Amino acid sequence: MRVLSGIQPTGRFHWGNYFGAIRQYIDLQNEHDSYYFIANLHALTTIRDAALLRSLTHDAALDLLALGLDPNKATLYVQSDVPEVSQLTWILMTSTPMGLLERCVSFKEKKERGIAADAGLFTYPVLMAADILAYDANWVPVGQDQVQHIEVCRDLAKSFNHKFSEVFVLPEARLMADSAKVPGTDGEKMSKSYDNIISLFEEEKAARKKIMRIQTDSRPMEDAKDPETDHLYQLLKLMASPEELQEMADLYRRGGFGYGQVKKALADAAEKFFAPAREKRRELEQRPDTVADILREGAKRARVQAAAVLARAEEACGLTAPS
Amino acid sequence: MRVLSGIQPTGRFHWGNYFGAIRQYIDLQNEHDSYYFIANLHALTTIRDAALLRSLTHDAALDLLALGLDPNKATLYVQSDVPEVSQLTWILMTSTPMGLLERCVSFKEKKERGIAADAGLFTYPVLMAADILAYDANWVPVGQDQVQHIEVCRDLAKSFNHKFSEVFVLPEARLMADSAKVPGTDGEKMSKSYDNIISLFEEEKAARKKIMRIQTDSRPMEDAKDPETDHLYQLLKLMASPEELQEMADLYRRGGFGYGQVKKALADAAEKFFAPAREKRRELEQRPDTVADILREGAKRARVQAAAVLARAEEACGLTAPS
Repeated sequence: MRVLSGIQPTGRFHWGNYFGAIRQYIDLQNEHDSYYFIANLHALTTIRDAALLRSLTHDAALDLLALGLDPNKATLYVQSDVPEVSQLTWILMTSTPMGLLERCVSFKEKKERGIAADAGLFTYPVLMAADILAYDANWVPVGQDQVQHIEVCRDLAKSFNHKFSEVFVLPEARLMADSAKVPGTDGEKMSKSYDNIISLFEEEKAARKKIMRIQTDSRPMEDAKDPETDHLYQLLKLMASPEELQEMADLYRRGGFGYGQVKKALADAAEKFFAPAREKRRELEQRPDTVADILREGAKRARVQAAAVLARAEEACGLTAPS
Repeated sequence: MRVLSGIQPTGRFHWGNYFGAIRQYIDLQNEHDSYYFIANLHALTTIRDAALLRSLTHDAALDLLALGLDPNKATLYVQSDVPEVSQLTWILMTSTPMGLLERCVSFKEKKERGIAADAGLFTYPVLMAADILAYDANWVPVGQDQVQHIEVCRDLAKSFNHKFSEVFVLPEARLMADSAKVPGTDGEKMSKSYDNIISLFEEEKAARKKIMRIQTDSRPMEDAKDPETDHLYQLLKLMASPEELQEMADLYRRGGFGYGQVKKALADAAEKFFAPAREKRRELEQRPDTVADILREGAKRARVQAAAVLARAEEACGLTAPS
């Protein structure tokens, strides 16, 4: 199976991104032919600062590689390095019914929240469809909020295949484990828009400070508590060893402990959990040419695939002569 | 000055296209650095038949070359052969306000006429802006109905230049002589949608038949008539020699002639007027490789220009590293 996933470089990655998405799709590289791209063309719909977009794109590459994305197993590239995707976007655009885009929840919501609507935001699902179809992807790991866009992609592919000929492979959405299970510093789902995130590659000291300030309830120390309903324990569960976890669960059930103690354990576990990635990232930072080579090689491989699909599409709709 | 014009291969060219547009912009090749393209990506918004789009694109190239477009003076290319235009389209899309597109008359009119609205039709002005901006074009010869789209192009260019840096040259619309002056077979403006056209490269016999059936009024033969208000004379004016024209004008003013006589003169004049182009077209049909070479060479030249502009735009908005 070919798996494809894009990640928008709209901010530094946080725990929610990692446990809710990145970890899950990096795992897929071991079993599947995997394509991962840094979606800078999508990010352009919200980031209007060239230096920021540039550095976030670079950071995203470093982060993904540091977190275990293996360029020998998977294809990693920057979206805008594959012109074929933009070409395919227009082809798909010409047979995208307005109603299909108007019904997309992400557009409707942003519009309702009063965010100035740009055509880029509106036609975003068409670019996303091109991102997927250009690589004959079978599976697209997504969160619940992206399922509708995969449906749009399937609709566009089916309609093109029907109108012209069987050019596109129909992708399937693979719903990832719910990222809502990663609570933020206020106990709510961790999300940049809630301002409750802990970044993946924050300096240890800053991360520890944030962890120590995670909001907790005011039950007395001596009370016994159910670990499974506590967000500190939920976070610990993501990073601690089974032994550490068992010990902490026992402590919760016995009572007679302070949240400060849990936070300290969480900070230690997080530091330990991400230490190898931090180390790898520091190494990669010293080798910008290696990273550039990886992205160049990734784009080269991606383009071979995308060019083949584009050639099929262009021929099918009459933009080019039959081969 | 750099002049740019695109022509949609949505049907075979007719007298209206030629006298209203093609002739005027072919003339510009003698004075200016001229870019002419066959807009197959635009045509895709209405033509959903691959073989038809392919043959109309090929016919458009043959027709333009036969009519005098000189590949040694001007750059002639097929729109989809320049991927940079599609890439630039997305970049512009991300900062195109929805309202700007919603106000475009061509979209509003088609929507009001009940034509199923596709996103391609809606975002058409963004692709058109990319077509123009990709070549640093100064002048765009257009009909009245396209002036609004040039305004959209200028708005997008200004907004990008303001937000990032001075990347785009602002183009100006150059209004062409009114094509409404070319009447069709029913006396109304010649237009494919009125089904009153006479094609440029129709077989002589078929063209003559159509000319002989042009609608006329029922005033008696003997009446003197004002040539300037008669559509047969208007057509003759476009193609007859000054001497022939003078003779015919005298005849109108004297009276005592039949419209059949004028039609015959018109058919003769048209045949004579287009004879060299017909001959040239027959020649070109025998040399498909020459035509392919011309288009390939044109696309190559066009891409050099478009790649330079795209590089500026990508760098300015942060898609690529500073050069």
